[in-house]
Amino acid sequence: MSFKDDIDIVIPTIRNLDFLEQWRPFFQPYHLIIIQDGDPSRTVKIPEGFDYELYNRNDINRILGPKSSCISFKDSACRCFGFMVSKKKYIYTIDDDCFVAKDPTGKDINAIDQHLTNVTTPSTPYYFNTLYDPFRPGADFVRGYPFSLREGVPTAISHGLWLNIPDYDAPTQLVKPTERNERYVDAVMTVPKGTLFPMCGMNLCFNRELIGPAMYFGLMGEGQPIGRYDDMWAGWCSKVICDHLGYGVKTGLPYIWHSKASNPFVNLRKEYKGIYWQEDIIPFFQSVQFSEEATTPELCYLELAKQVKEKLSKVDNYFINLANAMAMWIEAWSEMNPPVKAVISANGPAPKK
Amino acid sequence: MSFKDDIDIVIPTIRNLDFLEQWRPFFQPYHLIIIQDGDPSRTVKIPEGFDYELYNRNDINRILGPKSSCISFKDSACRCFGFMVSKKKYIYTIDDDCFVAKDPTGKDINAIDQHLTNVTTPSTPYYFNTLYDPFRPGADFVRGYPFSLREGVPTAISHGLWLNIPDYDAPTQLVKPTERNERYVDAVMTVPKGTLFPMCGMNLCFNRELIGPAMYFGLMGEGQPIGRYDDMWAGWCSKVICDHLGYGVKTGLPYIWHSKASNPFVNLRKEYKGIYWQEDIIPFFQSVQFSEEATTPELCYLELAKQVKEKLSKVDNYFINLANAMAMWIEAWSEMNPPVKAVISANGPAPKK
Repeated sequence: MSFKDDIDIVIPTIRNLDFLEQWRPFFQPYHLIIIQDGDPSRTVKIPEGFDYELYNRNDINRILGPKSSCISFKDSACRCFGFMVSKKKYIYTIDDDCFVAKDPTGKDINAIDQHLTNVTTPSTPYYFNTLYDPFRPGADFVRGYPFSLREGVPTAISHGLWLNIPDYDAPTQLVKPTERNERYVDAVMTVPKGTLFPMCGMNLCFNRELIGPAMYFGLMGEGQPIGRYDDMWAGWCSKVICDHLGYGVKTGLPYIWHSKASNPFVNLRKEYKGIYWQEDIIPFFQSVQFSEEATTPELCYLELAKQVKEKLSKVDNYFINLANAMAMWIEAWSEMNPPVKAVISANGPAPKK
Repeated sequence: MSFKDDIDIVIPTIRNLDFLEQWRPFFQPYHLIIIQDGDPSRTVKIPEGFDYELYNRNDINRILGPKSSCISFKDSACRCFGFMVSKKKYIYTIDDDCFVAKDPTGKDINAIDQHLTNVTTPSTPYYFNTLYDPFRPGADFVRGYPFSLREGVPTAISHGLWLNIPDYDAPTQLVKPTERNERYVDAVMTVPKGTLFPMCGMNLCFNRELIGPAMYFGLMGEGQPIGRYDDMWAGWCSKVICDHLGYGVKTGLPYIWHSKASNPFVNLRKEYKGIYWQEDIIPFFQSVQFSEEATTPELCYLELAKQVKEKLSKVDNYFINLANAMAMWIEAWSEMNPPVKAVISANGPAPKK
């Protein structure tokens, strides 16, 4: 089964020339969307042989007009602009300090292949299967798994992991500067319904028809009080919406090789408010409720934006700006992805007027 | 750290003489409690060098009197009698067709050691950690994990897995007679709060002070309409009680080698009602609520027995008998494990009168 025409690879800036060379055998068959996060006058040089489109800040401003303010500047959170302009069913997004990892037999891991396997097989969010993904070859549902739940649900998100440098916050980086992730866990599993998880954007795939509108990476970077919570925000939002709409989220394989730890002192400056705020944000997401009318990711996301403004503005005024940006993001998404197409693609009912 | 005096190994019958010989290096330091499931006149021969006590049906009848009717006959569910008579903090229970497995480096796996590591380190049921058990060496909480939840909660249950013959139900056994589990997944994880899982009794460890009274294996075997749901029942009951009391349940490592598949035709006869009933049982457990007064596993279990009678008796009259047996089990448990001791050991508040 070829997915050549079904997936775009979205990369926020490429500062490392080795990056595309190392991924060439795996990425060359696909279309790349590169979003340049900083100075638009800087030229990003893409090696020959890749099929790509590149957007810098001037492009984003030109295409979105006043709504471009919802896209972060000088931060990898800008990648979500690529999710919006893609016309493909699936998105794979990866950071430019992530390289090809090897499995325990020494073989290069084809991350895209594994992600596509994950998102094209069902998830099982309503009951835990102790042998992990029952749809993998050599595995199945174990004794005591209700037969009525074995069809599973469509998978919206595949969250891949990282060998070498683990995705730690600044305090943990500072405390454990030499810790490396050397454990290859040969498993894919569904994050159960009702359970939140920290979604990392380094190595992430999703079905944009099912959940794309919820994959907004928030307001980070220049002019914003926090950073490094872009993917977490998208993860919390998309997980509660997947739970509501009956879609699944998988985590585990594939691994990539995360080459270098970012500066923990810089990270601490970006993160410290988020570390404090997440103590309120997570209980908020644990109690989010959607109405019966919220039958599409767009409608869910607009309801969520409203609740963010109501409930999180008392944590900080930042969340008022974020809630406004969330609504703006959906406006822009809907313009770029006209509702009729989106509704047909998602096989869902038409949104109520 | 030695746990020699803290754990009993409970085995339901030993039909296979190789079993103890193969486990000798790992089991000999510990005390065994063997519960003979069938004909009490049959002599079970235990090789020299093991420290053990053995109970047959006559012993159970003598010790429990009329309450012995809550202990299954001619079924491995009788093992729970061993949980009751133990005076240790931890129980490890294993089936006699389970042998020592090897890890990917070829080394024999010390299952008890891994279980004791699991139950003596905290669980994290309130939020998912994508690098699995954060208390394992080389792992930690990832970015986006709230710091307020990093202390974790006491672990009540450690559910180990099986290489070779997977724990499949009869229909899956019939459809996939040659499937073997060859995937060694090097992970331990917490089953999130609010998520049910199929707990298998083949390779299971728990803290009997925290959750022992909920580890009742139900009415199975001779004179009962179902079999092979003893461990599932204990798993569903203990999981909802762990969720209520704030204890954790881990699954994953250690593996044992499950040597042979039981007869799928016999299994089908034992299971078919359970396969049908579990479609109602699982939604029942997903909606179980406990009162604020239910502050010990005994009190929770009595509330659960009442709800089983109220809600599941419409599925089948069997659940009336089961609910009565559940209450009888707690009576017997409390006699064998006087409340004062149990309350002190669990460091919990005294039950309200």
